[in-house]
Amino acid sequence: MALALEEAARGLGRTAPNPPVGCVLVRGGAVVGRGFHPAAGEPHAEVFALREAGEQARGAAAYVTLEPCSHLGRTPPCVAALIAAGVSRVVVAALDPNPRVAGRGVGRLRAAGTEVVVGVREAEAVRQQAGFRALITRGRPWVVYKYAVTLDGKVAARGEGNGAVTAAGARARVMRWRNELDAVAVGVGTVLADDPRLTTRGVAGGRDPRPVIFDRRARTPLSARALRPGTVVVTAPDTDTAPLEDAGATIVRAATLPGALRGLGQLHLSSLLLEGGPTLASAFFAEGLVDEVRALIAPKLLGAGLAPLNGPPRGMADAAALRAVQLESLGPDVLVTGLLNDIPRLGAAGDL
Amino acid sequence: MALALEEAARGLGRTAPNPPVGCVLVRGGAVVGRGFHPAAGEPHAEVFALREAGEQARGAAAYVTLEPCSHLGRTPPCVAALIAAGVSRVVVAALDPNPRVAGRGVGRLRAAGTEVVVGVREAEAVRQQAGFRALITRGRPWVVYKYAVTLDGKVAARGEGNGAVTAAGARARVMRWRNELDAVAVGVGTVLADDPRLTTRGVAGGRDPRPVIFDRRARTPLSARALRPGTVVVTAPDTDTAPLEDAGATIVRAATLPGALRGLGQLHLSSLLLEGGPTLASAFFAEGLVDEVRALIAPKLLGAGLAPLNGPPRGMADAAALRAVQLESLGPDVLVTGLLNDIPRLGAAGDL
Repeated sequence: MALALEEAARGLGRTAPNPPVGCVLVRGGAVVGRGFHPAAGEPHAEVFALREAGEQARGAAAYVTLEPCSHLGRTPPCVAALIAAGVSRVVVAALDPNPRVAGRGVGRLRAAGTEVVVGVREAEAVRQQAGFRALITRGRPWVVYKYAVTLDGKVAARGEGNGAVTAAGARARVMRWRNELDAVAVGVGTVLADDPRLTTRGVAGGRDPRPVIFDRRARTPLSARALRPGTVVVTAPDTDTAPLEDAGATIVRAATLPGALRGLGQLHLSSLLLEGGPTLASAFFAEGLVDEVRALIAPKLLGAGLAPLNGPPRGMADAAALRAVQLESLGPDVLVTGLLNDIPRLGAAGDL
Repeated sequence: MALALEEAARGLGRTAPNPPVGCVLVRGGAVVGRGFHPAAGEPHAEVFALREAGEQARGAAAYVTLEPCSHLGRTPPCVAALIAAGVSRVVVAALDPNPRVAGRGVGRLRAAGTEVVVGVREAEAVRQQAGFRALITRGRPWVVYKYAVTLDGKVAARGEGNGAVTAAGARARVMRWRNELDAVAVGVGTVLADDPRLTTRGVAGGRDPRPVIFDRRARTPLSARALRPGTVVVTAPDTDTAPLEDAGATIVRAATLPGALRGLGQLHLSSLLLEGGPTLASAFFAEGLVDEVRALIAPKLLGAGLAPLNGPPRGMADAAALRAVQLESLGPDVLVTGLLNDIPRLGAAGDL
């Protein structure tokens, strides 16, 4: 399953609205086929793995990171392909929360006499599929709030004279995240102050996330480096966006933040890397729309400066506690990750 | 030497102005004696170890965390005792920066034909002796800035309704630090707002650090829980402190923070745990008087709140970088420690 998860990871940021899925076929202790879902409209992971295995699929065990599909979508159902190829055993990391699958894939395999095991490395698989799961069950992207902060909790000095907070390893990790998430979001304030490109740099085979600019009054300059064909600009419903549209921007109009996220979901954006400043991040945080936190901490003290969040006010006992916290050293810096919201799952593996 | 460092640690917070020192005597692969320096005026570590070993000291190797003293202080020189006992080999973690020793101890041992090795686990020993080294070379305590902060860099919510930032493991660690450092410092603002006891609780065999209240205008209430006989109150030179003195407080008068620290040094306080709020901590930080940082980070987001430091303003490129950074998980919380100032050392071990 570890190999299947690695395969699946190759599709991260490329498969929405579909999930990233990996499949590995094992026969007699040897890997005879592997595959991943590369993009919506392309064949599923199982199909690539079965193609590679050919006749060796007969009697093999299939390790799949997500329950195989049982319905005819843009591609034929994988359950039928696995049965037809004579796969004798299917090991599934996690069930598919898609209401059109939701256990039916596993049910059909069992009905055909195939041995099925569910729940192997489920937590990792569910985390890898967070975007897909948020999109299909909540109709909005999974929001990952990323920030880089000094040990005394400052994301930037006041005024001019700023520099990078973290070192090369942390910045490389951010580039990997940009490559793996569907979209990257900033507020117009960040665009006006820093004019970021919001591209993926230094990742082999990397592709750029779709920039999303939260900009109620359409103040984004037409010269902004993040403004390119496909860039999403989120505005208030009544804002004149003609110049931005002429520049190739996709406009999402919404009166509220949840409405904006639903609009991004309709664009098949399943995951959003929130890189904006304190104003945008605090707005997401205030409405409970930060699903996951990735904090990069540089071991240095700044003194005066800007905090990552500036609201809303609450008592310490009401602070939002992260779950599934993980700690990692990245060169001199420290990465702390954790969840604020649950990743949608379909019951417990033991239910089926 | 690991055992000797453990022995030495038993004296932490109890030996100033002397250093915490541990000594272990090994003969034929077996520990035949061990000792630590328990308090100024008491025998040195070597004496306890030699007493325990008795005749078995002859031909033994001595592991000492600090260069043995060569001068007659309140106790006879340890170098003479080691030679008289027939110890054949002395392994020293670090040289003594005390100008009355400063390599002379090692020199006399060698002159007497004793084999001497210097520099074994030196970094750990130097760190353990940071207070002694600061006091004897700079005439002021080693300042350890401790704070507990949320992942978004807040030490407290604004106004009322606060609670603990970190969990039980982190709070127990703070109690261990209070037991190991000579003094604990807060500003009068913290005394007025929180009325802390500044005692050591839950540590077996623990003792309380000496409270130090930075209080220019002597506003500390006589009912303050931290005010007990021996509590140090640091005031401006011209402040009326008669009531505090009547309550048993020791007064340090100083116009500047460096002056105040020299005053604390004269009281033989070799280490100071800075637990005050942002105002006091920022004053220390602004003057480069924070020697070591111990940051406890709770994996939760607060939003609005108070930062650990509120100045002075500087650019991100001029942030103060920690050295010798270490990372530790304490239950759900994360401890990041590091140095801002160097611990005074006497040359490199290779110099002798």
